[in-house]
Amino acid sequence: MTIDSTAGQDTVTEEAVASIGATADPRLRELLTGLIRHVHAFVRETRLTQEEWEKAVGFLTATGQTCTDTRQEFILLSDVLGVSMLVETLNGHRAPGATESTVLGPFHMTESPARQLGDDIDLVGSGEPCVVSGRVLSEDGTPLPGAVLDVWQADADGHYDVQQPDLQPAGNGRGLFTADSEGRFWFRTCVPAPYPIPTDGPVGALLRATGRHPYRPAHIHFIATADGHAPVTTHIFVAGSDYLDSDAVFAVKKSLVQDFTVTDDPFQAMEFGVPNPFRQARFDLVLERAT
Amino acid sequence: MTIDSTAGQDTVTEEAVASIGATADPRLRELLTGLIRHVHAFVRETRLTQEEWEKAVGFLTATGQTCTDTRQEFILLSDVLGVSMLVETLNGHRAPGATESTVLGPFHMTESPARQLGDDIDLVGSGEPCVVSGRVLSEDGTPLPGAVLDVWQADADGHYDVQQPDLQPAGNGRGLFTADSEGRFWFRTCVPAPYPIPTDGPVGALLRATGRHPYRPAHIHFIATADGHAPVTTHIFVAGSDYLDSDAVFAVKKSLVQDFTVTDDPFQAMEFGVPNPFRQARFDLVLERAT
Repeated sequence: MTIDSTAGQDTVTEEAVASIGATADPRLRELLTGLIRHVHAFVRETRLTQEEWEKAVGFLTATGQTCTDTRQEFILLSDVLGVSMLVETLNGHRAPGATESTVLGPFHMTESPARQLGDDIDLVGSGEPCVVSGRVLSEDGTPLPGAVLDVWQADADGHYDVQQPDLQPAGNGRGLFTADSEGRFWFRTCVPAPYPIPTDGPVGALLRATGRHPYRPAHIHFIATADGHAPVTTHIFVAGSDYLDSDAVFAVKKSLVQDFTVTDDPFQAMEFGVPNPFRQARFDLVLERAT
Repeated sequence: MTIDSTAGQDTVTEEAVASIGATADPRLRELLTGLIRHVHAFVRETRLTQEEWEKAVGFLTATGQTCTDTRQEFILLSDVLGVSMLVETLNGHRAPGATESTVLGPFHMTESPARQLGDDIDLVGSGEPCVVSGRVLSEDGTPLPGAVLDVWQADADGHYDVQQPDLQPAGNGRGLFTADSEGRFWFRTCVPAPYPIPTDGPVGALLRATGRHPYRPAHIHFIATADGHAPVTTHIFVAGSDYLDSDAVFAVKKSLVQDFTVTDDPFQAMEFGVPNPFRQARFDLVLERAT
């Protein structure tokens, strides 16, 4: 495999691909072969300079070193380049009527505390009161009793609990709910607000250099799981929110945008334990049967 | 830019490319456009799963977090995938007869101490004594007085000083030499040995998973600079070394392999201040004129 004086540029890609020929796992070999071919093609097409390569190494190193137990800058990088959304969509479920998936995002980092249906996940009561309710259904409309919903959202100022350990109690904006015997769920929270993804790291610098804003439209995260069904990772977006048409992470799908209706109904308010009037979002989560 | 229910997979790449349309620096826009297109094509072609994406995020994060002031795991990753060699070769110099370039490698991390011609860079005297000498020339053969050579190498056990701060004095195996009035250089060292690149990090795990050995053939690193000339980053490889045909980082070029001849000459040994017999490597470094 000695590289001939004049052939290095042409042969190094084939040498690198050949070098992984003994990979025991055929899928790993397939992935690495694709990775080597695309990275090499990128370098050739752009005629990447040594100085640009050094900057890229520095950027990737800083991205890794910005990660902590509560911050995942590489997921954020994947998100702002549209890679997370592409992976999610390629692997998304396709049964007609099933709830569409969207990105996990970088803030699903801690275990959500188990809560009772009806609990308020806005532990500090800072935002506009809101009731979120609906059913978890199978693709044919059958309710799924015992389905589990992992829910997480930013507070009314746009921060997740893990971003403000000194200001928010752990588990603020998070809850693990179990649907009732008819597959129903309901909980209290505050209406989420649009917020910027973290901009004080390498990804923030990338957004500034590319003239992009860092905002995400208002949303609540869900992972819904039920026996015999494929789990779905998704968001519910607040209809009318700013940035629905320019989400920094490309995660909006039309079917996931829901009305958060102003409800003026003292009886319902009393039942849910919220002040009247309040905001209300009602939607079903529909899971595809596991194959 | 709201993603239609069915179109997400097809449109997210164009959305991501469009999102960087306001990038002020046209070269940055070109590089990021190429990056987005290639990463997305890789994900599509391999139908990357969510679990594989999570492993990739974990791998990149660990790679960044393995980097320290004295270890650059992302350069190592670039090296073992052949990317560093491709970048170096694409940007290499092409004047006939000019010394070919090869990778920088991950261990050019500290400033080499300035030394006098003839000094011994093997500060601990552990290896087989060796004299390295030659001239720095312009492409037409004119000597280049005052040319500077930055030299670094592993010790006879295959470790750089920065890898063993408790065992090796700082600057062991390193030196910054200035060519004399006739462009000549000479210094003493030990014959370098083949050695494995560091395998205790993510890149080592990657090599194991792909059935690759981590060894590099024996070599000495050089960066040669001279007024009015393009600097060259290169190695000199020891002829006959193991692994010349399977360098873990694909850096061998035939023109860079040099004999390290056994010399039995008491007079020369005395002149250089080495025991007799000793090993000797003689070669010229030829720089291309700056354009």
